[in-house]
Amino acid sequence: MLPARTLVGTLFLVAAVSSAAVPAATAEDECDLPEEMVREIRSYAPVADKIIRFVTEGKFKGRTWNKLAGFVDKFGSRIAGSQNLENAIDFMLNELRKEGLDNVHGEEVTIPHWVRGRESAKLLEPRMQTLPILGLGGSIATPKEGITAELLVVDSFDELHHHKEQAKGKIVVFNENYTTYGESVRYRDYAAVEAAKLGGVATLVRSVTGFSIASPHTGWQDYDTNVTQIPTASITIEDAQMLSRMFKRGEKLKVRLYMEAKTLPPAKSRNTVAEIKGKEKADEVVLVSGHLDSWDVGQGAMDDGGGAFVSWLSLAAIRKLNLRPRRTLRAVLWTAEEEGLVGAASYVEKHKSEEGKLNFVMESDEGTFTPQGLVFSGSKTAGCILKEVLKLTASINTTNFQLEKNVGSDITLWTSKGLPGASLMNANEKYFWFHHSAGDMMTVEEPRALDLCTALWAVSSYVVADLSFGIPRN
Amino acid sequence: MLPARTLVGTLFLVAAVSSAAVPAATAEDECDLPEEMVREIRSYAPVADKIIRFVTEGKFKGRTWNKLAGFVDKFGSRIAGSQNLENAIDFMLNELRKEGLDNVHGEEVTIPHWVRGRESAKLLEPRMQTLPILGLGGSIATPKEGITAELLVVDSFDELHHHKEQAKGKIVVFNENYTTYGESVRYRDYAAVEAAKLGGVATLVRSVTGFSIASPHTGWQDYDTNVTQIPTASITIEDAQMLSRMFKRGEKLKVRLYMEAKTLPPAKSRNTVAEIKGKEKADEVVLVSGHLDSWDVGQGAMDDGGGAFVSWLSLAAIRKLNLRPRRTLRAVLWTAEEEGLVGAASYVEKHKSEEGKLNFVMESDEGTFTPQGLVFSGSKTAGCILKEVLKLTASINTTNFQLEKNVGSDITLWTSKGLPGASLMNANEKYFWFHHSAGDMMTVEEPRALDLCTALWAVSSYVVADLSFGIPRN
Repeated sequence: MLPARTLVGTLFLVAAVSSAAVPAATAEDECDLPEEMVREIRSYAPVADKIIRFVTEGKFKGRTWNKLAGFVDKFGSRIAGSQNLENAIDFMLNELRKEGLDNVHGEEVTIPHWVRGRESAKLLEPRMQTLPILGLGGSIATPKEGITAELLVVDSFDELHHHKEQAKGKIVVFNENYTTYGESVRYRDYAAVEAAKLGGVATLVRSVTGFSIASPHTGWQDYDTNVTQIPTASITIEDAQMLSRMFKRGEKLKVRLYMEAKTLPPAKSRNTVAEIKGKEKADEVVLVSGHLDSWDVGQGAMDDGGGAFVSWLSLAAIRKLNLRPRRTLRAVLWTAEEEGLVGAASYVEKHKSEEGKLNFVMESDEGTFTPQGLVFSGSKTAGCILKEVLKLTASINTTNFQLEKNVGSDITLWTSKGLPGASLMNANEKYFWFHHSAGDMMTVEEPRALDLCTALWAVSSYVVADLSFGIPRN
Repeated sequence: MLPARTLVGTLFLVAAVSSAAVPAATAEDECDLPEEMVREIRSYAPVADKIIRFVTEGKFKGRTWNKLAGFVDKFGSRIAGSQNLENAIDFMLNELRKEGLDNVHGEEVTIPHWVRGRESAKLLEPRMQTLPILGLGGSIATPKEGITAELLVVDSFDELHHHKEQAKGKIVVFNENYTTYGESVRYRDYAAVEAAKLGGVATLVRSVTGFSIASPHTGWQDYDTNVTQIPTASITIEDAQMLSRMFKRGEKLKVRLYMEAKTLPPAKSRNTVAEIKGKEKADEVVLVSGHLDSWDVGQGAMDDGGGAFVSWLSLAAIRKLNLRPRRTLRAVLWTAEEEGLVGAASYVEKHKSEEGKLNFVMESDEGTFTPQGLVFSGSKTAGCILKEVLKLTASINTTNFQLEKNVGSDITLWTSKGLPGASLMNANEKYFWFHHSAGDMMTVEEPRALDLCTALWAVSSYVVADLSFGIPRN
């Protein structure tokens, strides 16, 4: 998951902040759907139960975890521009064909190609200490000899501006306090620009997470075309706090930062598409999605292997049950999400003419821990329909419904324009502990939770795609 | 904290396992102390309150955290044999003198000197992947070209022996499931010996922790003089599980392990001693302790900076309040605990003749999170006295009492012989998440919790040292 200020800016931040919040207080009785609509939705109970049983107790049991484990173990991390990502996409296209899905294909996208290279940071004064770092995506390299400079350590942008005369020639360390990801990520996003404006020569940014075991977290950052580019990397919570304590004691701190990071010419990648062709209104589409690319550390099992696999395995389960909804069910596995929703933006652009036929968009990119329901963006009536659909999953306790202005990451490109959409609500309180770190490994995923996610995803997407009526837009 | 099979073996394991357990079911009314004894203990309420207020609300407030932060930031990690540890000891001797404590001195100890050197592990087949490792203390190096070998991945010693014909020439990976530290640490302890017996050429042991963010955990291990020594290192939970999954799918795994670790000739270090000389029975001693050495990663803030600082700052607080107990209160900051209770063993040996005068031994080496009371080892009557003493700390909620056969790490050298002793009971459920990892940084310590620990430690040690009667032995 990436909040890219280039593309969605604060819209997404709002969604990210609130996704962990309590379900909105939209009282059940505020819904007043026509009785026949409710009756129709409720008539799906037998097929919903069938899907749920098949996925969570039947032949599909454990399949999402097994498939995901096989995939992330085979490929490891999959950063945009890497051969590894393209191999993973080839593998997926083959998998999707083997599942008997319709219209399996890749759709070409031009993507950024940033490469980390070797990198290191060492505290030289007041004592020697290696500082684990992860360069931030898009960062430039240091000169070959590295950058050796004194530190200015601040807790906030405000504090930086209070001490602006001290920034020149310094490596600026941001020891921002973590509140929420949506709130604190601005330090990762803007650190280099803000420090460079004041003459800073590099930045070290405390990782955007509430908890750490000496683990740095990477993530995309953007330069401002009007401001000098300076190298920027993340450090651990522990080191940021240590440097801050030392600095506040009046000690002179010196660090040598070395980064080989570079941006290569744009590369080619693909969004990966598979469908169950609709039996009546094949040109109308319900879209489920997640992204296949990841950061270049860990296995990208959580961000967003889980979301991508829940999405395509929902189609695989529906296919195995020989179900075919009225509308087309389309799974899209985005590419280059981490660099700024690049795959999704390209898709939106290329498929603009079909947008009127896009009925509902779903995305899972905030964890696939124990599912609780859906976070929804759209009109009141659309929300009421979704709430009714969610009741079909009462047996697996995923009926929670939360209304948001925008949901998901990639699909904000549509929901911000009024298209109804939903993202997965799950027990992801620890999501940002692992996010963009080497800890994003298969260990965080759990077979039962993944089965439940797939079941919820399959039931809700199938029913919405099969209803006699479409989901009304704003 | 280190369970060293060379010195305390299973005794300590019992203590380690149970320290997180529910308080023992010794009912309050089982105690039947003479009324005058109870009255005497209760008469300490005013002085106990005075100590508690001074440490948690008065001039001492925040002092333990500040002192500890200053210390671990100044020195970082302090492994046995390092100049850094000796500098830290010099610094402490000076600090203790500045506090006006009595008889401040170092007591020489000959200690092991193991040096990590550079180290790395890389999965070469079925795909390239760097595996973060921490060589285990005492391990030998690999040859200069490293060891490149196929992996045998097992979940247990039992599984290793089921596949013993496959171990020859392999790097044996132990993916043991974590139950408790006391139970699972045997894999760190015995992996190299067990694998070498079957012809294994090196071992990679899953870190002994229940939770990880890609964090390897080191720790001491001992070779068997009758078995070939092979290099041995820890890997992360995540990687151990990944390798296990791959292995179980029948994939051929190959790793290159490189370690420069070496054991240098034994070095000199010191136990750091400071006292408040007793005003009546100066030859009788109540001892409070923690260890100053740490592993060579992180800052050793938790293991055992916190324990050492709680101990000497208890004396400093008592000193500042111009209190002087009947018996001598002695703080000992052990050296080389991590290599097998080496400092403590030397102390026990050198002070054998005074053992009859040792009234009570205390140690904090399992975290200084929010304190809850004491874990106690000793006779029933001694336990009843301690329970009564703990009631004096009711205002800070540290009256919990738990009876164990042995407590602490270093002080097991006495408690296993029947001397009464106590260790700190605290909310340390996450202790092993950070233990022996780069995450053992000041970030895990909290000012209020440290104040409370110091207050509990000061009250209980002062009262025991001042009572008209000694704590009875077994």
